[in-house]
Amino acid sequence: MTITKRSHFWNTRWCFGLIAFSFLVILAYLEIRNRKWVTSSSKMGDQSTVTWPKVILLGDSLTQYSMDPNNGWATILANSLQRRCDVIVRGFVGYNSVMTRHLLPRIENTFDGLVAVVVIFLGANDVANATKNPQQHVPLEKYAENLAWMVQFVKAKGVCADKIILMGPPAVNGEKVTDRDLEQAKKYARKCDEVASLVDVSSVNLCDLMQQKFGNGSWKELLIDGLHFSPEGNAFVASELLPLVTQKMKTHQQLFPVWNEISTDDPAGSINKWTPA
Amino acid sequence: MTITKRSHFWNTRWCFGLIAFSFLVILAYLEIRNRKWVTSSSKMGDQSTVTWPKVILLGDSLTQYSMDPNNGWATILANSLQRRCDVIVRGFVGYNSVMTRHLLPRIENTFDGLVAVVVIFLGANDVANATKNPQQHVPLEKYAENLAWMVQFVKAKGVCADKIILMGPPAVNGEKVTDRDLEQAKKYARKCDEVASLVDVSSVNLCDLMQQKFGNGSWKELLIDGLHFSPEGNAFVASELLPLVTQKMKTHQQLFPVWNEISTDDPAGSINKWTPA
Repeated sequence: MTITKRSHFWNTRWCFGLIAFSFLVILAYLEIRNRKWVTSSSKMGDQSTVTWPKVILLGDSLTQYSMDPNNGWATILANSLQRRCDVIVRGFVGYNSVMTRHLLPRIENTFDGLVAVVVIFLGANDVANATKNPQQHVPLEKYAENLAWMVQFVKAKGVCADKIILMGPPAVNGEKVTDRDLEQAKKYARKCDEVASLVDVSSVNLCDLMQQKFGNGSWKELLIDGLHFSPEGNAFVASELLPLVTQKMKTHQQLFPVWNEISTDDPAGSINKWTPA
Repeated sequence: MTITKRSHFWNTRWCFGLIAFSFLVILAYLEIRNRKWVTSSSKMGDQSTVTWPKVILLGDSLTQYSMDPNNGWATILANSLQRRCDVIVRGFVGYNSVMTRHLLPRIENTFDGLVAVVVIFLGANDVANATKNPQQHVPLEKYAENLAWMVQFVKAKGVCADKIILMGPPAVNGEKVTDRDLEQAKKYARKCDEVASLVDVSSVNLCDLMQQKFGNGSWKELLIDGLHFSPEGNAFVASELLPLVTQKMKTHQQLFPVWNEISTDDPAGSINKWTPA
């Protein structure tokens, strides 16, 4: 009787031990899988997978068209940051901050993995005149609320505040785009700066910068139709944004060895030994 | 004694049942997590996350420089496929097929998620003269073996053969690049076609196409230095590659609703109801 009880006791204990061990193994597996590692490197530095950082550009048509082969601002970024990050474009023609806010949960996996920088570039449609274009217009306070909400959303995805950049609307040329005007654009651009300051992220006020740096109305040449960027406008956006993006990126080197530093006798060795600085 | 035995029996059975059940739950979880869904949509079609398809460009300097803001061939692809996919550049200046083959396991996570197309564009360095440039030269048969190995690697990551494209070396101008010549490039380009045929993937023979479509040596104007593409060369690469890439992509529509089809009264509703065709 005593022996049977003991065997029963050990059997139960063994089973529970096994269950507990299984769960620990699985928890450890999931933890490792979820972590955002630049490398899942072993101590040997061999065969570890390198995760490419992402620079994510979220916005409207000014972002959707940014991969223009004729000097698009995203191509300038991608080319300058070649072999250091992926430039991921999430631009949606005609979207205002309300539409983009509601879209964000549906593209939340964009922010998975290793995020180097997120640029939220909105407002060019929000500034549309309430009477002439009620479908795109967003009131100033609602615009501010949407920007703050989106920053919060991105932060909740694990992106630090110091990796987020807000860009308000650029200057618009009301002579060419009849449902928008420069005074409204200025207000929204300043509101964007205010929000950035409140939620402690960086901001770029393209609207003011365009007018400061291209005086006497010559900023109008940065736009092809009063609203979208010309090749010069694209270059200007990149020139303002790139230094800020570069500063926020951790990887300042090109990924993987330079070709002529790879050993001809042992190429695998050279490549496997490489680790990000 | 009998009662004790029975309780022992049931206890053991319960424990093993629990273990088996736990493993089934975990296996189901991992299976769901690993599946490459365009949407993880509920029946309601609400709030499901849309995964952006990736077009992955793997290669050497001809790929690393492809985001050139002056008509780079990857920018032409990215611009043409805007809001339909991400163009992911994995180009490594100076790398030949040996180096790239050894690199591939270290960037294997590039192929995670939803892969629309993979382009493997190698050979421009392999063709280097064995005597003049032994560090970059790769013998023809070894080049073929490496290409086949890489296709196999990509397939093992879950990418179907019909989503893979091999591109061999373009025509090189031996008058300007002294360690390579056109005859070698032709051989390697044909070998690339052979491998593609053997492993049942698509291929693009840029070397032959350049000479066919730009006769009397005018193909040399597609190159700036005898090896790298001029803006016209970039346009030519894109013109040959884009139709093939587009054909292999499943998503022929732009992702998410057009702005003026979004309800002003219920923007969330319009956006959440949208599903990929």
